Amino acid sequence: MFRTHYIDSCVNALEQQVTINGWVQSRRDLGGVIFLDIRDRTGTMQVVFNPDISAEAISIADQVRSEYVVSITGTVVKRSADTVNPNILTGELEIKGEQIHLFNAAKTPPFPIQDRVDVDENVRLKYRYLDLRRPKMQETMMLRHKAMQVVRRFLDGQGFVELETPILTKSTPEGARDYLVPSRIHKGEFYALPQSPQLFKQLFMVAGMERYFQIARCFRDEDLRSDRQPEFTQIDLEMSFLPLEDLFSMMEEMFVTLWKETLDIDVPRPFPRIPYKEAMDRYGSDKPDLRFEMELIDVTSALSQNTFQVFQNAIQSGGVLKAIVVSGKADWSRKEVEKWIGEAQDIGAKGLAWLALKPEGVKGSVAKFVSEEEITKIKALTGATTGDVIYIMADKSAVVASVMGELRLRLARALDLIDESKFVFAWITEFPLFEYDEELGRHVPAHHPFTMPVEEDIPLLDTDLGAVRSQAHDLVLNGYELSSGSQRIYNRDLQMKMFDLLGISQEEAQAKFGFLLDAFEYGAPPHGGMAFGFDRIIMLLAGRQNLRECIAFPKTASARCLMTDAPSEVDEKQLADLHIKISNKQAVR
Amino acid sequence: MFRTHYIDSCVNALEQQVTINGWVQSRRDLGGVIFLDIRDRTGTMQVVFNPDISAEAISIADQVRSEYVVSITGTVVKRSADTVNPNILTGELEIKGEQIHLFNAAKTPPFPIQDRVDVDENVRLKYRYLDLRRPKMQETMMLRHKAMQVVRRFLDGQGFVELETPILTKSTPEGARDYLVPSRIHKGEFYALPQSPQLFKQLFMVAGMERYFQIARCFRDEDLRSDRQPEFTQIDLEMSFLPLEDLFSMMEEMFVTLWKETLDIDVPRPFPRIPYKEAMDRYGSDKPDLRFEMELIDVTSALSQNTFQVFQNAIQSGGVLKAIVVSGKADWSRKEVEKWIGEAQDIGAKGLAWLALKPEGVKGSVAKFVSEEEITKIKALTGATTGDVIYIMADKSAVVASVMGELRLRLARALDLIDESKFVFAWITEFPLFEYDEELGRHVPAHHPFTMPVEEDIPLLDTDLGAVRSQAHDLVLNGYELSSGSQRIYNRDLQMKMFDLLGISQEEAQAKFGFLLDAFEYGAPPHGGMAFGFDRIIMLLAGRQNLRECIAFPKTASARCLMTDAPSEVDEKQLADLHIKISNKQAVR
Repeated sequence: MFRTHYIDSCVNALEQQVTINGWVQSRRDLGGVIFLDIRDRTGTMQVVFNPDISAEAISIADQVRSEYVVSITGTVVKRSADTVNPNILTGELEIKGEQIHLFNAAKTPPFPIQDRVDVDENVRLKYRYLDLRRPKMQETMMLRHKAMQVVRRFLDGQGFVELETPILTKSTPEGARDYLVPSRIHKGEFYALPQSPQLFKQLFMVAGMERYFQIARCFRDEDLRSDRQPEFTQIDLEMSFLPLEDLFSMMEEMFVTLWKETLDIDVPRPFPRIPYKEAMDRYGSDKPDLRFEMELIDVTSALSQNTFQVFQNAIQSGGVLKAIVVSGKADWSRKEVEKWIGEAQDIGAKGLAWLALKPEGVKGSVAKFVSEEEITKIKALTGATTGDVIYIMADKSAVVASVMGELRLRLARALDLIDESKFVFAWITEFPLFEYDEELGRHVPAHHPFTMPVEEDIPLLDTDLGAVRSQAHDLVLNGYELSSGSQRIYNRDLQMKMFDLLGISQEEAQAKFGFLLDAFEYGAPPHGGMAFGFDRIIMLLAGRQNLRECIAFPKTASARCLMTDAPSEVDEKQLADLHIKISNKQAVR
Repeated sequence: MFRTHYIDSCVNALEQQVTINGWVQSRRDLGGVIFLDIRDRTGTMQVVFNPDISAEAISIADQVRSEYVVSITGTVVKRSADTVNPNILTGELEIKGEQIHLFNAAKTPPFPIQDRVDVDENVRLKYRYLDLRRPKMQETMMLRHKAMQVVRRFLDGQGFVELETPILTKSTPEGARDYLVPSRIHKGEFYALPQSPQLFKQLFMVAGMERYFQIARCFRDEDLRSDRQPEFTQIDLEMSFLPLEDLFSMMEEMFVTLWKETLDIDVPRPFPRIPYKEAMDRYGSDKPDLRFEMELIDVTSALSQNTFQVFQNAIQSGGVLKAIVVSGKADWSRKEVEKWIGEAQDIGAKGLAWLALKPEGVKGSVAKFVSEEEITKIKALTGATTGDVIYIMADKSAVVASVMGELRLRLARALDLIDESKFVFAWITEFPLFEYDEELGRHVPAHHPFTMPVEEDIPLLDTDLGAVRSQAHDLVLNGYELSSGSQRIYNRDLQMKMFDLLGISQEEAQAKFGFLLDAFEYGAPPHGGMAFGFDRIIMLLAGRQNLRECIAFPKTASARCLMTDAPSEVDEKQLADLHIKISNKQAVR
């Protein structure tokens, strides 16, 4: 009754009797001959029941329907040439069915168990146990499993120790909202679920563990976007006594290994390193998609004397002029050209100038304001040649970066400039230590308050916060941020100074992070680390568009599990045990 | 400045210049020559600074103290014969120090960083980052890491897929109290932290994943004992289409591999299988310590005609008489013999009879009531011979089992009968499906409500619940329960019947487990699985006495983290966001 062979191993069992277990994918009755396609985790196999077998077997084969769970015993034989299915591994074989056992019947599922199925995602999530039966979902889960094993083996081989950190813990300072857990024993007190194991991993370094990793669950109670989940998984690691250079090199090797072992793709090394400022200048983004060029090019110098009012205003108020060259599109119609002006405005531009370098001369919205000499300079700066379109945006540097960065991506997608089979990694380095929060009216940590400044910028902490570079770095891939990391402060005084600069009082710092500050007094080694978004890595490896496709039991954008219907109401007694009440009860639901 | 060698690799670097990084274990100044013992994750190394090196180096070497973090460059040389330390790996070597760099200073730690240190556990937990520096703790954490890797590699090799399940989920039916997490988005609703991934792993089977595992964090809000933690880690697994026999065999191989790869110990296979009833009969426990014999032996038949009132009463009220033989202790003094009667009474016995088979004749509390013929029968049943003491207890079967089971353990410990180097595994099988809860006045699931009854006992569900055996099993090791598992019900009707028998209404079942019941209608395969207590496995592997020694950041018996001081009070704003209030606020703290 129990399997002797997985379906994929039947290809090595020609002329042998086998028993397979699985689900009925489909059933056809052709003049008394019953054909079943049976599916297990490894594939599907056609089984043929001829009328000459036992009446019992025929009767069962006759009553089974899609998704019934069965055991089938029979002999593996070659299919006749005309029935070979070249699309599946077992397509040259079938099983001549002899016995069939019915483990379980099945109602007709709400959607067919196959890849090409157009079903509302909410239905898929409600019946996730059926959705996960689909080959594509199985494949993604297997890939996720494999990636986990590869990463762990790699890190184990590099002397990293896998260590677990508490889930019931104290609020961590990642800046997002915490999930809280009321304590039953300590009335009025709460645990927080970790936004990351940040403090614990730094304490592991103080504890002399030297190399720590964990594939860790993290929690943030934020309003969700399509690529966010309330709980997510990160590859979390931290190292002592390791120069940043060696860390980069080691992590590159990890990703090269991961891509090789899961997709059999050779990713080139070393990954380029791009300082944050350069990334913003060239791509208008700190997570540039490097699968294509089309860089943002500063043409301010070429147009510094230009009389076009918009250009002049921008330059005089300290702004910049940046160009994107769209190669070979000088023959675009006015409508085609102006479509992208509309897109730029949607993104946030006031306007967008354009020039078309036609064979017959320069045309475009600002053609009449631009001299031949200026065109020559622009061509020199941008590399544009006859036949190209040049878009030019003038505004404050940050606005130009944000609009032109996004416009670059949209143009590339529309013009099919992106090679979807490519994986281009890069390190973005030297992030600013602080960013100015307009709303709060003060500087906040760009990364987190434990990030080490670049050594030579430490004096700037007293004079120009905005100019202090940090030893923080991101790994980016194809326009996505895969990791965020930094070398850490390991000196109590510098850490206290950081808190001070961030407007965190000594008392508050001691109350929240006292144990870390204390730990720094007992011999903290130099250390640093990073965290990789594991769900996103899987999304990119699997070529999926959405994190929910890569998590077995994800939550919706309103943080609900449609299958279990969590969260849900609970007994009054449970709340009483926890010493809490729902406030303003009448408004519930 | 950064290390070229870990300390343990210096043994292969004789006469080479090396740089090591680590902590100062100790410092001595012998007439201007400074000796430092430097510690990293791999060991300790003596470094000698002679006065002839640079003034800067001498000055730093002079100021460092215990637990300072340093980098040292020097040449690995042989120690003079009279200073060799045979107790450590690097004991024949020392480093002739040339340069020293101070990464960080350290205050004097609250306790010395060494294994043999008698410190209050609360102090150790408050300064856990220092406690974890001690070699024994480092070793335990490394062992834990290694065990995780071995288990994952083994399960991966057996086709198990590592799949993650939600932490923010719905209450699971393990019977313990849930930790709750208020939802911000859904007012008045709560997530529960999983007591185990039970429902999700069964759904993975319905989803056709066939073999699932996870090293999973689980949560139970129970009053804690020394071997409980509010969050704990389990090796969780589930399989479809696998006979119990094969599951046992596979899991045995996993443990044999784990013991071999971590301790280099060969554990014999197959593990004995002992039905629950037999375990209770022979050892008075469902988690017997099998490292020694001293079984409980039923002597009711030998004494059925005995006139001793206590024996008679017990037999007539359906009780039993059970004996434990203490070999070679017939020469115990009366005080020594009666010590154990006192222990039995402490445990819960009304009394304990005894016989000493002295060379000169039978003595003891019931000697005058026992005939020669009865003695002969007792000897035949128990294997006792001249020179032995026999304790006999008479009471209801359950009371005898509980008292004599515990007495057996205490006797064995006192008499040093337990070989601490032995690891004796066994499967306990055929657990009862239900147990009678005196307090509730009804039957409750002995395991959980998804456990499959033994096939032939299914009819008893309608007639005699207490007699129904389940397809549940535990793995026990040296008196500890390592796992709990079962084959599961995979048929909706049988599952509904179970709920009905347990007094769970259709509505309640649907509200709590509707998604599982629904899933059973869409083609659930036969499946089963188990969960191994990972923290406890590490405790036994590491030879530790307490789970807290095996968890990096454990909580106290009142579920508090002494280092972070979690749980703690939170802002009113946070509670307002979550739509909750603390009830009866004035009583807080």
